[in-house]
Amino acid sequence: MNVKPIQTIAIIGSGNLASHLCSAFMHAQRRVHTVVSRNPIAGRLLATRAGADYVAKVEDCPISVDLIVLAVSDSAIESVVRRLPENQALVVHISGSTDIDAVDKFEHHGVFYPLQSFTKDKEVNFFEVPFLIEGASEEDEARLSDLGKAISTKVFKASSDDRRYLHVAAVFASNFSNVLYGIAKNILESNTQLPFELLYPLIKETAVKIKDLPPHKAQTGPASRGDKAVMERQLELLKHHREWIQIYHLLSDQITKQKNA
Amino acid sequence: MNVKPIQTIAIIGSGNLASHLCSAFMHAQRRVHTVVSRNPIAGRLLATRAGADYVAKVEDCPISVDLIVLAVSDSAIESVVRRLPENQALVVHISGSTDIDAVDKFEHHGVFYPLQSFTKDKEVNFFEVPFLIEGASEEDEARLSDLGKAISTKVFKASSDDRRYLHVAAVFASNFSNVLYGIAKNILESNTQLPFELLYPLIKETAVKIKDLPPHKAQTGPASRGDKAVMERQLELLKHHREWIQIYHLLSDQITKQKNA
Repeated sequence: MNVKPIQTIAIIGSGNLASHLCSAFMHAQRRVHTVVSRNPIAGRLLATRAGADYVAKVEDCPISVDLIVLAVSDSAIESVVRRLPENQALVVHISGSTDIDAVDKFEHHGVFYPLQSFTKDKEVNFFEVPFLIEGASEEDEARLSDLGKAISTKVFKASSDDRRYLHVAAVFASNFSNVLYGIAKNILESNTQLPFELLYPLIKETAVKIKDLPPHKAQTGPASRGDKAVMERQLELLKHHREWIQIYHLLSDQITKQKNA
Repeated sequence: MNVKPIQTIAIIGSGNLASHLCSAFMHAQRRVHTVVSRNPIAGRLLATRAGADYVAKVEDCPISVDLIVLAVSDSAIESVVRRLPENQALVVHISGSTDIDAVDKFEHHGVFYPLQSFTKDKEVNFFEVPFLIEGASEEDEARLSDLGKAISTKVFKASSDDRRYLHVAAVFASNFSNVLYGIAKNILESNTQLPFELLYPLIKETAVKIKDLPPHKAQTGPASRGDKAVMERQLELLKHHREWIQIYHLLSDQITKQKNA
């Protein structure tokens, strides 16, 4: 299909993700035309960085652009959609857990979801970030795919349903892993003089090993070996932390189940 | 201190860790003199690879070597110690969760614990693997430290108590993260056509990000944002998996606590 490329973009939002996407669009030689944000400090800062205009109100978002990106929190999508005038631009949200229907007020609409954990002040290499796209029409989807490929080597089509499951999978794989790192740090710092850095190589090795071995085959440790004696000694060390003990039991059970599946 | 370097080594055991350590010793130009294993196939194979002798019985372990490494499961340490003749070699175990006392039958003894998750058929770069060492005497400790530094850039002294806490921290940071990767894979494969590979960049980014930001600051996701609406929608997707729901609740609570700590 011969698709009309996306050249000019308005971004609604000035948070983490808006800021990271803005950089990505600029790297891909697209023009960020306007940043829309009710936060004048972050909004103006981002606009300045992008060489873009700044407007405060969604109602004032320019509609002559090719693409309008709703880079706002999931809970704000509905109200932004309500306030954004009807238009002929392609309007997308970037949320993992929101249906494409949320933007179906607009003739051309879709989803442009980057699967990555974006943290303020931490550069992201978008080249490796998978983009999950969904378009209202074949043409909308092709245009988003085209834009995605200008940013990343990993562009996938995914239905709203697929994306929802992907998002919950990502919560387990990323948000929940990260909180376990935090518990590990807490255990070390409360009980030893050893630095948390000691665990970096192990954490990294565990994360990259799954490229070579599926998690259930890569699994190691006392629960995987069925080593009850070590497990009991470890639970004893956690005795003042009821919730950590619950987590220890639940995740050890999962290890056993994955092994026997 | 002027320490007598460890040149010749006997390894008791022929499993994963024995095999990885054997390679590491050889890279460090130490001579693996004998492999002791009641498993003749694995034992002979490892001995051949290392250019070492093979003996089946712990009672027949040569005691003229500089170092005897008990590379056996935690539960086997006691019986190996019982059967190993008294000797003047330095005798070490390599277990994270076993006290140094387990080998105190021998005049020179200690612990040589590599903090890494070793998987069969997966090469390990020991250079980055932290070694936690403990010696019965200053001399024993210095000799182990010397050997550790020939293998790795990261050698730390740690008491048996420190090591035990480190080991349980490692279970949270590594074994439990890995089982979450397995749950994520399961969620994707049971509900979508999307490949698990989609999550690799996110998983890796989460694992390496903690070098720049402590976990509680790197935390993202619905629980971190307090986004109850998304959390409820995600729990609905997990409704046929009671244990995953429990894990979701427990780890989301931990995210909230770490944020507010």
